[in-house]
Amino acid sequence: MNDRVATEAYDPKTVALLSFSKAVPAFVDGSDTPRAYLERCIETIEALEPDIRAFVTLNLDGARNAADASTERYRAGRPLSTLDGMPVGIKDVHETEDMPMRVGSPVFEGRSSGWDGAIVYALRKAGAAIIGKTVTTEFAFATPGPTRNPWDHGRTPGGSSSGSGAAVGARMIPAATGSQVRGSILRPAAYCGAYTLKASYGAINSLGGFPSAPSLVHVGFIAGTLADMWIASHCVSRIADGDPGHPSLAGPATLPRPDKPERLIRLETAGWAATEANVKAAFEDYLGTLADAGIEIVGRADDPEIEAYERDLVALRDVIALILTYEGRWPLAMYDDRSPELLSPRVRERVAAGRELTPEDYAEALEWCAAFRARHEAFAGRADGFITLNQIDPAPVGMPVGDAVYGEPSSVAGCPALNLPLLSVQGMPLGVQLMGFFREDHRIVANAHWLVHAVRGIDTSAG
Amino acid sequence: MNDRVATEAYDPKTVALLSFSKAVPAFVDGSDTPRAYLERCIETIEALEPDIRAFVTLNLDGARNAADASTERYRAGRPLSTLDGMPVGIKDVHETEDMPMRVGSPVFEGRSSGWDGAIVYALRKAGAAIIGKTVTTEFAFATPGPTRNPWDHGRTPGGSSSGSGAAVGARMIPAATGSQVRGSILRPAAYCGAYTLKASYGAINSLGGFPSAPSLVHVGFIAGTLADMWIASHCVSRIADGDPGHPSLAGPATLPRPDKPERLIRLETAGWAATEANVKAAFEDYLGTLADAGIEIVGRADDPEIEAYERDLVALRDVIALILTYEGRWPLAMYDDRSPELLSPRVRERVAAGRELTPEDYAEALEWCAAFRARHEAFAGRADGFITLNQIDPAPVGMPVGDAVYGEPSSVAGCPALNLPLLSVQGMPLGVQLMGFFREDHRIVANAHWLVHAVRGIDTSAG
Repeated sequence: MNDRVATEAYDPKTVALLSFSKAVPAFVDGSDTPRAYLERCIETIEALEPDIRAFVTLNLDGARNAADASTERYRAGRPLSTLDGMPVGIKDVHETEDMPMRVGSPVFEGRSSGWDGAIVYALRKAGAAIIGKTVTTEFAFATPGPTRNPWDHGRTPGGSSSGSGAAVGARMIPAATGSQVRGSILRPAAYCGAYTLKASYGAINSLGGFPSAPSLVHVGFIAGTLADMWIASHCVSRIADGDPGHPSLAGPATLPRPDKPERLIRLETAGWAATEANVKAAFEDYLGTLADAGIEIVGRADDPEIEAYERDLVALRDVIALILTYEGRWPLAMYDDRSPELLSPRVRERVAAGRELTPEDYAEALEWCAAFRARHEAFAGRADGFITLNQIDPAPVGMPVGDAVYGEPSSVAGCPALNLPLLSVQGMPLGVQLMGFFREDHRIVANAHWLVHAVRGIDTSAG
Repeated sequence: MNDRVATEAYDPKTVALLSFSKAVPAFVDGSDTPRAYLERCIETIEALEPDIRAFVTLNLDGARNAADASTERYRAGRPLSTLDGMPVGIKDVHETEDMPMRVGSPVFEGRSSGWDGAIVYALRKAGAAIIGKTVTTEFAFATPGPTRNPWDHGRTPGGSSSGSGAAVGARMIPAATGSQVRGSILRPAAYCGAYTLKASYGAINSLGGFPSAPSLVHVGFIAGTLADMWIASHCVSRIADGDPGHPSLAGPATLPRPDKPERLIRLETAGWAATEANVKAAFEDYLGTLADAGIEIVGRADDPEIEAYERDLVALRDVIALILTYEGRWPLAMYDDRSPELLSPRVRERVAAGRELTPEDYAEALEWCAAFRARHEAFAGRADGFITLNQIDPAPVGMPVGDAVYGEPSSVAGCPALNLPLLSVQGMPLGVQLMGFFREDHRIVANAHWLVHAVRGIDTSAG
């Protein structure tokens, strides 16, 4: 990674990433077309991709064909969905019928199934233009890829949805898929200044990709606007459903109307101790703005149950580590048996650690998680949701993808969690996290809409 | 299917399918070897496979290599597990690195990943000799394969684990994998006179195969003896774990000791009304034997809560049909979009019906299932388990794989369920079903052990 620094500082008051929703009226009245929108994306990609390196593979011909078909549908007055014509990047953990899947590892060489994963299938059914596969870390947790942060090319974009965060943050595309087991959607969105919804566990079908399905895996979208984030999530969830056994996302097909939260629980989480002072200060300042707007903010000092929850959030770090290590027993251990030379030392360490764990260790961790979820959900009705950070620092300089600590609570709780890129520090994006309650994604998104729209005056209502 | 009838009538008092566990002491003392055991299996396969047609693919060289390696380990006094050297068939819904996966459909032509599915990986780690892929119906629910019932070649072996049931019932192999969403493990085991445990939901890792993972999918083993059924289930569950988020099977590595049930709830289920009179009579006779042995049998007339549960078991038929139809929206709908000409009319009908369902229909069905599971589990502590049939008839003549009705309750309850091939009717096997409580598999298997051992005098304690 070179140390070239982008000239543009991140300013949440003026920044505008790509919006797809805002372009749709022009598709409808014929003054713009999905194909022309796509060509503008491609222009940006051609200009920035040599530096940013967000993509593993591009399929511009495929995307152009899809955009042309979409253009025809708008002409005929028959778009397929709210996202017909949307250029979308696919994190390289989901399979596509037209591009290989590598998951940041050589072990998948020549092994693509040739089918679309569930989320990709749904996107095509909705009329989206699949433009390429975005970079992920090795097996979505280990060795980082070559991707750079669009706001400072000397810094990481975060991981593991590195390419998706960077491509959206660099305005190459309006939206891209992500997946999270620990912090892999929330963190790159935060570091790259993008919106994201890590939806409730199971709300978006995760099948058809990297064959590991850890019990904490969530899929979702990183997007340039809150509206695009929501329409993409909702649309695919209604077409390809949730994971088997889970209902689709509830709520409207378009961005839920702004709903002012009355009461938010402010969480420190295990991340607070490691958080840089200037990041803390920006967050405290923001909480002050919310309080000024009449939102009640309560925290660990106000309520012993919040204090107990905060203590769980520290203990959770070891539990999630154990679960991820244990769940590497298949398929990671199989890759290690067959092709150890193709795995990084970090992956091999996880496999070795997994061999030492017992089914009883794992069963105990699962029980802990069930109790933790109950504790989280017990706050429903007592507050609209939780507010915290998504990052301990501005994206760090160099290759390590940063600390996932702020992503872990919602990964274990299974609750919806958003990154709202409303702040900045050192000219880099600083994300605010909102967490809601299980399967109540639309409610916390409505609260997020109010926060973005009313508090900062950023117009997301139309796009 | 021709109408040739096998000369051997099924007599549960004298029948002996293959036992692997019984052979192990001879491997240890050197008077027999896994390779010699395998060759005896291969001899039977070569004699019967042209008529039975249990296998899609055989890999005898691979199995011989594995058996040789196992032979060396016993010689060195270091077998890998309780099932080191066991010849096992793999239902053609699980992937293997050495054979293609077709799932009874041409859509998978040329698309194998080249990895072992979780259950296959675990079997190899345990030292098993993977001998071939066994026939399944199309996508494990539609068009039947060519397999014939080993007890009467003019009859179906049941489905969808058709080849696994037939290969074990024909004494070709001691055990084979199966998978069940509706009745696909219990039914072929019943029709073919084999033992099976459909383990608790999630107890055996189902990943790495047919990419559909309906919310009701269970994997398990069909085996010639109760002991082999248990050691195979327990061993793979401890190596490749349960499905992510689910603990492995509890209980000992070898068959739990016989435990006499004090009280069993006798269920009719939705199957009773369609059950043939001679099947009912044999079951009633068997219940009389249990009562004579001092086991209390209670039923719908004895307890209004059992009556309410029985009514749920009738309503459940529509709920399970809705869930399976809805869960075909991906990947079946994708296959239908891409290659409709490769799908049978029955599959295409399910896809079409799935397109008519709404996420709300599905969410309502999931809620029904959650309430049903709670009703089932509420009997824990009030009885050791449930007893019912596994089939409405002796295996029907011809190709249809029979009625899955008796398999459905445990598929939705997620509870452990066994087929015990203890009865016969018309010279064909008739299975008794025991159902236990979620994640208490070892307890109901201990009850099954007592029933098999004490009531009928069939010796399963050593094999």
